[in-house]
Amino acid sequence: MTHNSTICAISTPAGQGGIAVIRVSGPEAIDVSDKVFLPVGRGKTIKKQKPNTLNHGQIAKGDSVLDEVLAAVFHQPNSYTGEDLVEISCHGSTYIQKEILKLLIENGCQLARPGEFTQRAFLNGKMDLSQSEAVADVIASASAASHRLAMNQMRGGFSKELHRLRSQLLHFVSLIELELDFGEEDVEFADRNQLIQLADDIHVIIARLSHSFSVGNVLKNGVPVVIVGETNAGKSTLLNLLLNDDKAIVSEIHGTTRDAIEDVINIQGVAFRFIDTAGIRDTNDEVEKIGINRTFRKIDQASIIIWMIDTTHFNTEIEYIADKIIPKTKNKKLIIVFNKIDKISPEEQQILEEEFLPHVPAERIYLSAKYKKNTEKLEKALLKAANLPELNTDDVIISNLRHYEALTKALKSVERVKKGLKTKLSGDFIAQDIRECMHYLGEITGEITTDEVLVNIFKNFCIGK
Amino acid sequence: MTHNSTICAISTPAGQGGIAVIRVSGPEAIDVSDKVFLPVGRGKTIKKQKPNTLNHGQIAKGDSVLDEVLAAVFHQPNSYTGEDLVEISCHGSTYIQKEILKLLIENGCQLARPGEFTQRAFLNGKMDLSQSEAVADVIASASAASHRLAMNQMRGGFSKELHRLRSQLLHFVSLIELELDFGEEDVEFADRNQLIQLADDIHVIIARLSHSFSVGNVLKNGVPVVIVGETNAGKSTLLNLLLNDDKAIVSEIHGTTRDAIEDVINIQGVAFRFIDTAGIRDTNDEVEKIGINRTFRKIDQASIIIWMIDTTHFNTEIEYIADKIIPKTKNKKLIIVFNKIDKISPEEQQILEEEFLPHVPAERIYLSAKYKKNTEKLEKALLKAANLPELNTDDVIISNLRHYEALTKALKSVERVKKGLKTKLSGDFIAQDIRECMHYLGEITGEITTDEVLVNIFKNFCIGK
Repeated sequence: MTHNSTICAISTPAGQGGIAVIRVSGPEAIDVSDKVFLPVGRGKTIKKQKPNTLNHGQIAKGDSVLDEVLAAVFHQPNSYTGEDLVEISCHGSTYIQKEILKLLIENGCQLARPGEFTQRAFLNGKMDLSQSEAVADVIASASAASHRLAMNQMRGGFSKELHRLRSQLLHFVSLIELELDFGEEDVEFADRNQLIQLADDIHVIIARLSHSFSVGNVLKNGVPVVIVGETNAGKSTLLNLLLNDDKAIVSEIHGTTRDAIEDVINIQGVAFRFIDTAGIRDTNDEVEKIGINRTFRKIDQASIIIWMIDTTHFNTEIEYIADKIIPKTKNKKLIIVFNKIDKISPEEQQILEEEFLPHVPAERIYLSAKYKKNTEKLEKALLKAANLPELNTDDVIISNLRHYEALTKALKSVERVKKGLKTKLSGDFIAQDIRECMHYLGEITGEITTDEVLVNIFKNFCIGK
Repeated sequence: MTHNSTICAISTPAGQGGIAVIRVSGPEAIDVSDKVFLPVGRGKTIKKQKPNTLNHGQIAKGDSVLDEVLAAVFHQPNSYTGEDLVEISCHGSTYIQKEILKLLIENGCQLARPGEFTQRAFLNGKMDLSQSEAVADVIASASAASHRLAMNQMRGGFSKELHRLRSQLLHFVSLIELELDFGEEDVEFADRNQLIQLADDIHVIIARLSHSFSVGNVLKNGVPVVIVGETNAGKSTLLNLLLNDDKAIVSEIHGTTRDAIEDVINIQGVAFRFIDTAGIRDTNDEVEKIGINRTFRKIDQASIIIWMIDTTHFNTEIEYIADKIIPKTKNKKLIIVFNKIDKISPEEQQILEEEFLPHVPAERIYLSAKYKKNTEKLEKALLKAANLPELNTDDVIISNLRHYEALTKALKSVERVKKGLKTKLSGDFIAQDIRECMHYLGEITGEITTDEVLVNIFKNFCIGK
């Protein structure tokens, strides 16, 4: 992992747009940029410009002007990476982006690896490892909730909590170790009850952080929902209906392809991830049976099941589905959606309300997907079924599996510390467990890390960040 | 067309990336930005910052931080639009981009229409209309040649030429009109031969510009090429082969989808546009016949025909195709590609070279698409067949249909002027034709324009430029 090279990459989203930004970072960032940048008018070279300024100039390739650009200059350590950094804003033509990148590489830059700018920010002490990881989460976040989690983590909420824990642990271990130094004199510097209290406090915090993963994971990846029902019960109509205006604005503004996100729907800032399933029917066709069995297995991944029923079309399939679904709803929320209620009479609806599986605990929504009637009731039911806690801005919630694993290990260490204190274990062992706990927390912030861990973390970043 | 509003848009390409840029322009740009921007550390509000600086801050939404951003500040008239302008660089999450845009709109901005920033640059006199049009061409250009054309036009090469023409025409018309003022005295201020010379000079320039459209159009949109041959002659293998390394780099860096550009191939900076056609065979199937007839009609759009022949598989189809194609090659270039030469003996190739339609004028390339043999010969043949003139950096080549139409009309006016001078027409009529010529040139630069023309021009821009 060389750190002395000067790297470049396109940092804006891929493709054609009004403008694009190419980032150059490293010891030669300013010199290399000056090799391709010609100031216009009364402009100066980038080297002579003050930091944090924007400078108008041209990028030339041989005798022809490749583009008119603005170059933003940052001096180390006051830049994103902590190194000298130049950001070239050019016209967003893919041809120009590629040619400028080529020119920079010809003049000594290396093409940045995914996440390499952020990795350098970490290596230069601009942020710790959990904050670096949050950068990728911030970029990927698509709902208010996942964004809030990632932003809080990036801004250091989690790091601060870990820092506090580390201080407490350090204090703890120094008390124990002091005792060990004077061990022969058989002095007890630390009040055992106080130590137990300290271990309890630390245990509570680590346990809370570790347990927050179940909420954090859902907020980050979306509440898993499965829609089951007969093939023509109206699943896709329902999905389209739930794609609210907000989503429509996003695709209008961004030209985002609907495909990529069609199964994640935002309801009041919470993402619901709709797991794709095949329609269900009672069949003897072996191939179809495999598909239907797969659907039933997928139900296990969901925390909410929406069972769609076509109220105009009651048949034996419904009993078949009921037999299959109801046993699965134990630790899940079931929402029964009676669709096409525009086609039945109020009396028929009344009968449904009273007589359809009255003993099955479920939220029941009567709607018309076609006429967009009662969708807001379904949205409310989904939010209620998601059962997410109210979050404050400063709540620290973890959502990263790596952090969860480290916390789980740290938790076990603290549990050993508590047990050791209670069983009056030798201070040596207790100190070792505390050090172990500190080690696991240090893995999260990156105080303790390996190249392999770093490679794994940054390889999932986009290029240019 | 209001010009007093403050507009905002995402200016970077659509989607997720490392960073994204949101542009705010108009009289309230700085005030509105300050409503959503909180400086960090010792930072100041955007209003208090010097122009052309970058400022670190946060965008807050209620009590939570939406993002950490950099705000670039430009003061009118020294900005792209000629207005006060703020560019907010945020993390490239689609959620953040959308939320910042929403916040700006809530604080009084309007969402910019496509090309509205450039339209304002035009209305504020930062560039003329032909330069504005070139901005969209620069962004869309995908080859060195089309990029060079657009860049030259954007930087004012064409505008300068038109400006020179306008001065000459103005001088011309003032000479004529002076004579008219003193008309009763029957004085000839202007030497008739000199006037004829002037008209000739202007005629030559306008004619050259107008005729450059045929080259400009090809450079901008690509040289139209059609590949014909039997269904299995290897058309798609050949296309993949011509997708050179350069293209591969583009898609690697940008994640551009191959679909969108798969039929435009860059060879040494020149774009070749491959017109999609169906495979050809002699058939009695009526539906298939329609497809094949369509293929033959498409040949009319091409300037180069590549006829691919599978050398291992000569049959009656070849005669059928020859009968259909050869009559069409009159004003086109024909390249016969003998594919799969790795499978035939040198003697068989010798026979082909000597005996295959020896009287048909065509470039003949013997290659193996599979083993990538002789592809460079095909590339050379394509470049030769394209027959494009060597261009100098300063050559003014027009590539815009609107300009071509205006020049065609201007040319007719000048021709009437020349004829009028030769037939000793009254000065009134000559002056009127000169004014008309000036009018058409003014349409190009936008000195004379209508709202309708502007709407048509800018509606094809991307949003954010």
